[in-house]
Amino acid sequence: MNRQWLYAKQPAGKIGKDTFQWTETAIPSPQPGEVLVRTRMLSLDPANRAWMMGKTYRDALEPGQVMNGFAIGEVVESHADGFGKGDIVEGDWGWQDYAVRPAQRLTKRTVEAPLEMLIGPLSVTGLTAYFGLLDVGRPRPGDTVLVSAAAGAVGTMVGQIARLVGCRVVGTAGGQDKCDWIVRELGFDAAVDYKAGGVRRALAAACPDGIDVYFDNTGGPVLDAALSLMNLRGRIACCGNVSQYDVEKPGPGPMAVPGLVVTKRLRMEGFIVMDFYDRRAEAETRLARWVADGKIKAVVDVVDGLEKAPEALIGLFEGRNKGKMAVRV
Amino acid sequence: MNRQWLYAKQPAGKIGKDTFQWTETAIPSPQPGEVLVRTRMLSLDPANRAWMMGKTYRDALEPGQVMNGFAIGEVVESHADGFGKGDIVEGDWGWQDYAVRPAQRLTKRTVEAPLEMLIGPLSVTGLTAYFGLLDVGRPRPGDTVLVSAAAGAVGTMVGQIARLVGCRVVGTAGGQDKCDWIVRELGFDAAVDYKAGGVRRALAAACPDGIDVYFDNTGGPVLDAALSLMNLRGRIACCGNVSQYDVEKPGPGPMAVPGLVVTKRLRMEGFIVMDFYDRRAEAETRLARWVADGKIKAVVDVVDGLEKAPEALIGLFEGRNKGKMAVRV
Repeated sequence: MNRQWLYAKQPAGKIGKDTFQWTETAIPSPQPGEVLVRTRMLSLDPANRAWMMGKTYRDALEPGQVMNGFAIGEVVESHADGFGKGDIVEGDWGWQDYAVRPAQRLTKRTVEAPLEMLIGPLSVTGLTAYFGLLDVGRPRPGDTVLVSAAAGAVGTMVGQIARLVGCRVVGTAGGQDKCDWIVRELGFDAAVDYKAGGVRRALAAACPDGIDVYFDNTGGPVLDAALSLMNLRGRIACCGNVSQYDVEKPGPGPMAVPGLVVTKRLRMEGFIVMDFYDRRAEAETRLARWVADGKIKAVVDVVDGLEKAPEALIGLFEGRNKGKMAVRV
Repeated sequence: MNRQWLYAKQPAGKIGKDTFQWTETAIPSPQPGEVLVRTRMLSLDPANRAWMMGKTYRDALEPGQVMNGFAIGEVVESHADGFGKGDIVEGDWGWQDYAVRPAQRLTKRTVEAPLEMLIGPLSVTGLTAYFGLLDVGRPRPGDTVLVSAAAGAVGTMVGQIARLVGCRVVGTAGGQDKCDWIVRELGFDAAVDYKAGGVRRALAAACPDGIDVYFDNTGGPVLDAALSLMNLRGRIACCGNVSQYDVEKPGPGPMAVPGLVVTKRLRMEGFIVMDFYDRRAEAETRLARWVADGKIKAVVDVVDGLEKAPEALIGLFEGRNKGKMAVRV
């Protein structure tokens, strides 16, 4: 049997268990040019929630579809050139045990690393941090780099890569525990608990020389505060807007746009990791080496069992994870 | 006597005549290293209003100061190397007949052109359009370029330079008269009257292939509409926020930031013309040639008499001018 989680209905406000529906169906058969994949690991990402609200960089999720998501799996049966039984592949086939995919929708992974590394730090998550920080944010040694959702999948990587560049690194996270953790375990220079209130004042204290690069995973009040503290010619790498994904009514837009963007000559630039996939090998090689050399701690929070995927995603939006959230299937 | 307009008090809401105060004082004497200048032409700019509200790229105006502003004048007496009687100079000495300035605060103008060209099209205004469009917006032939405040000083130049690049050019302006004018006289492909309501729908109709470059002079509702119509990897050159300068209570921030910035991979980048002054000669030469060859119409709206400066600036915010607004002194 092929166990699946369907996307059942659009949430009004926060996602809940009734956003998803469990079903079991027959294992599909691949046609010529297709590959049958057995899911080994699912990636849970803030973007999963954004897809429920409309077209983004991909079409909106439609109720009744298998819940979409990035995954790692093993080839069970291949009718396509270039893929053979036992190959480890990644793709976006979603929350199910098995999937049939056209070959061009799969990427063969050849990096030798545990699956929990391949699902995050050495894949979408790590690449997002690498290209977003280095190519969009363009930090220089001595810069102050701020990253929001700093205890999350991308944030943990961004902060550590910024340290390698020679920057002062400040992160925001929800709760003192996570704040202490990113400083103690990941080498952040300072952390601000955005849930404690007074985020602008706390950030000003944590960034006495202002902010040169802000890696924005959240939008919302942290973006407002960061804009007010950006230095002349500062850069904001716009990666996500997670503060606005799991809410009934989105908050207001940033008042400082475009006023402070003009007077401070800021650059705000959005990106999607796929835009950089022609340079994927460069990033994977370096990230793997940094992890192997202990220069970066790759933190993955693994939940066991496909049946637990909905509560794991709900937990992600409640801020329960540290690092990359993944489900082992 | 030296006739002066002082900045009298911070306006609550729109500027009025009581924002300024007329005074007459003795003509000052230059010390060593200084130059006495006789004002010939004043530039009126939306930024004049922004300076009243706080620190921008310069310190805020303080009540009691001579009203600041960019000006062109003639050297009357020089105690500084490099400046001689009769030289035409520019600087920011503001609304007065005479000023003493340190030599390093003055720029000698050597381009042969009428003063009304030197105050705008071949100075701050033209340079703002040139560098902001070409270096920040980076249009390519075939792109759709939108510019707001398109009938104004910078907008008229941006639209015409974008035509030279081979772009489809769309402008927003206040009122049907100005809209007709930029299409008929300046060669815009389409114009949208932002005061007529339904600006998003009208812009969508005027930009059937979406927007690749938005040169934003206004912020506000036109920025909101533009964000929703930007194409993938579109660029927004953030030049001004004039919709928010002369108001009691600023409007909301753009809701699409950072959400659409991420999903469409937009770049929003602020700039100030002075950042590009090391390449000033390049721009002046080309702008002068384009004007001389009739490729660009340089439109200057000249008001005669220093005493008329306040009502001219009030008129600027009421949208009464076409092209560059200047006062002949």
